[in-house]
Amino acid sequence: MFSSLPSTSTFPLPNSTLPPSKTLTLTTTNPTTLSFNYKKPIKTKTFTIRASSHMIEKETAETHRPDTFLRDSDGGSGSGPSDQESIRSRFERMIREAQDSVCEAIEAADGGAKFKEDVWSRPGGGGGISRVLQDGAVWEKAGVNVSVVYGVMPPEAYRAANPASAGENGNFKPEPVPFFAAGISSVLHPKNPFAPTLHFNYRYFETDARKDAPGAPRQWWFGGGTDLTPAYIFEEDVKHFHTVQKNACDKFDPSFYPRFKKWCDDYFYIKHRNERRGLGGIFFDDLNDYDQEMLLSFATECANSVVDAYIPIIERRKDTPFTDQNKAWQQLRRGRYVEFNLVYDRGTTFGLKTGGRIESILVSLPLTARWEYDHKPEEGSEEWKLLDACINPKEWIGIVVEQLDCKPDDEG
Amino acid sequence: MFSSLPSTSTFPLPNSTLPPSKTLTLTTTNPTTLSFNYKKPIKTKTFTIRASSHMIEKETAETHRPDTFLRDSDGGSGSGPSDQESIRSRFERMIREAQDSVCEAIEAADGGAKFKEDVWSRPGGGGGISRVLQDGAVWEKAGVNVSVVYGVMPPEAYRAANPASAGENGNFKPEPVPFFAAGISSVLHPKNPFAPTLHFNYRYFETDARKDAPGAPRQWWFGGGTDLTPAYIFEEDVKHFHTVQKNACDKFDPSFYPRFKKWCDDYFYIKHRNERRGLGGIFFDDLNDYDQEMLLSFATECANSVVDAYIPIIERRKDTPFTDQNKAWQQLRRGRYVEFNLVYDRGTTFGLKTGGRIESILVSLPLTARWEYDHKPEEGSEEWKLLDACINPKEWIGIVVEQLDCKPDDEG
Repeated sequence: MFSSLPSTSTFPLPNSTLPPSKTLTLTTTNPTTLSFNYKKPIKTKTFTIRASSHMIEKETAETHRPDTFLRDSDGGSGSGPSDQESIRSRFERMIREAQDSVCEAIEAADGGAKFKEDVWSRPGGGGGISRVLQDGAVWEKAGVNVSVVYGVMPPEAYRAANPASAGENGNFKPEPVPFFAAGISSVLHPKNPFAPTLHFNYRYFETDARKDAPGAPRQWWFGGGTDLTPAYIFEEDVKHFHTVQKNACDKFDPSFYPRFKKWCDDYFYIKHRNERRGLGGIFFDDLNDYDQEMLLSFATECANSVVDAYIPIIERRKDTPFTDQNKAWQQLRRGRYVEFNLVYDRGTTFGLKTGGRIESILVSLPLTARWEYDHKPEEGSEEWKLLDACINPKEWIGIVVEQLDCKPDDEG
Repeated sequence: MFSSLPSTSTFPLPNSTLPPSKTLTLTTTNPTTLSFNYKKPIKTKTFTIRASSHMIEKETAETHRPDTFLRDSDGGSGSGPSDQESIRSRFERMIREAQDSVCEAIEAADGGAKFKEDVWSRPGGGGGISRVLQDGAVWEKAGVNVSVVYGVMPPEAYRAANPASAGENGNFKPEPVPFFAAGISSVLHPKNPFAPTLHFNYRYFETDARKDAPGAPRQWWFGGGTDLTPAYIFEEDVKHFHTVQKNACDKFDPSFYPRFKKWCDDYFYIKHRNERRGLGGIFFDDLNDYDQEMLLSFATECANSVVDAYIPIIERRKDTPFTDQNKAWQQLRRGRYVEFNLVYDRGTTFGLKTGGRIESILVSLPLTARWEYDHKPEEGSEEWKLLDACINPKEWIGIVVEQLDCKPDDEG
């Protein structure tokens, strides 16, 4: 879970054919890039997959936004009424609407700066819209990207998963397993050291049926999350943020928030520091053991909660006076952000090595970052408190009694 | 060569017992950390090694520098006269003298700032001296570290290399293969954007004989290099730097400079950018097919050439007036430095995942770095020329006629 996916990686794969669901997964935290893992197999063996630079086609720049990046066969043009619309199509529409509404809210809160937009497509279908706001009044660097990817799984993966199709001596014609992925991915780095960084990412995956097994069931899953990375703790901000995440989760399943809150703390872990990147939020992956409509609604709810979760915090902190020392500490924490993304984040590391769109992948990095040798905040200081919460993740929304004390929209 | 070594890596290993030499190698570009590869096997198979956090013991801080970090059995105390001194002992002495002389030259050129020293040791033997100068008049961050490491190779590696020692059903008691490593590693990041960053690293490795095969030959090898990373090209600076490297090489073998120059260009490659980190220098690894005394002298010559190769360039550039745009470009190139070190450098990535001393490993990162979205220097600009030379490595010392034109110590 925590290691980067290098150009040669080892994955546990099932010994026999794939179970009907919950086994084959493709995951990413950046929808321009894809990484592969298999989970919950009953019997496993390790198997080596060499990532190929052919896995994702080279993108080309476009001069205008198309109505959809879907292939025609996916309802990309001339599709029927919305009640017959595919999940692919509805998910793409959702993330593009979320991109518009988040960018609008960011521009309004920034009060002047505008996003720069790059539209790109791939010859075989798919494409994306990258929007970046740089050096605004409030945000140092804000990226909000959507993308739609048609790709293929390495044939070795399917071969190992489905050994009946392989000849005795490896005389096997590998056939790639096509997949579809769509997602929104965003990192928002403010200037003011008291205003936190926000990251969110929601994505939907499907594998196509194999040509030689047209009746085989498609597999699908959802992934994503929203997490907060401040340089200083304002407890009301963190409680507000987590409360919005919990409220979104609770509309669907009471187990979601505690489960996805822990998953987030576990995922955004900088192992060599024994620190989390920030103060968490929610994170989930490979989610397919609920109703597909319900999970689409859940992902939509989460994406639509971003503005409410984040903008009130920014409004409170964007003009707070700060010292050079506050700024230097923010920059050190930005260095940790870079360390996590370049060393551990699976979407980033795999994307860098498989030919994803580099500028879209690395827009997650802050505009500026800092590394001081052996920096240790003074015990008890505000910097130390943040570090302590990154080392020992806290329950920001605790038992019911604590919730009664939580007034997220009040100033502390 | 270019991929990072993750916590789970795949290495080609020989099918049968190790050839007498040149097969088993342990390499690193940071002597506090170790990475493993096997090269030049006749028959290979892939084999998975899970890196263990037990590979390197946790270090403890020391209040003073010991005369040596060697174990007593290696001549660590009460050793005989120098003509009987082990290579281990002579190499440690060399790198500690080089650390002293480089730090002295840096402090003199900086004109005020002093290195901060941290001494550390490991319970089972070995240790190191980290020296860091931060926020000086000339250097933003300068680290010069020496270390001596006693470690063990993962037993799986030896088991695969020596299958005769493994039982039929894997009922095999793995025995770690002890090794010794010593090295000096340094990264010097100046403030002025016209003054280049320098990196150098020289290291010596030995594997111990196995306890159950006391007569087996020890293996040993040398590695290292010195390379220059400017943000702007001053041709006389780069020629001077490469000329000093070539002169050091030519004292030993005329093939060294062209071979190690290319090796350097190949190693410091940021694959996802199709750019080198900088303008190269020399790099070599796994070097054991020459006389051991000769290679010790060669590594000594290289380490002793650092001051001559670098300080004259710093003296010329440290006070050059610069604009905010020059500084921003330097910071973008520092971002590339971070990308290389965190994504590709084998010593760094492996060290982060196996419990090396984090602060010594990451002292190589610049104090500050910058990532702008989709930055493209204007064609023909000075920034573009640097980028072009990183994409298309040049021969800075060309044919003999060109060498006659090279007056490295003159102002251009």
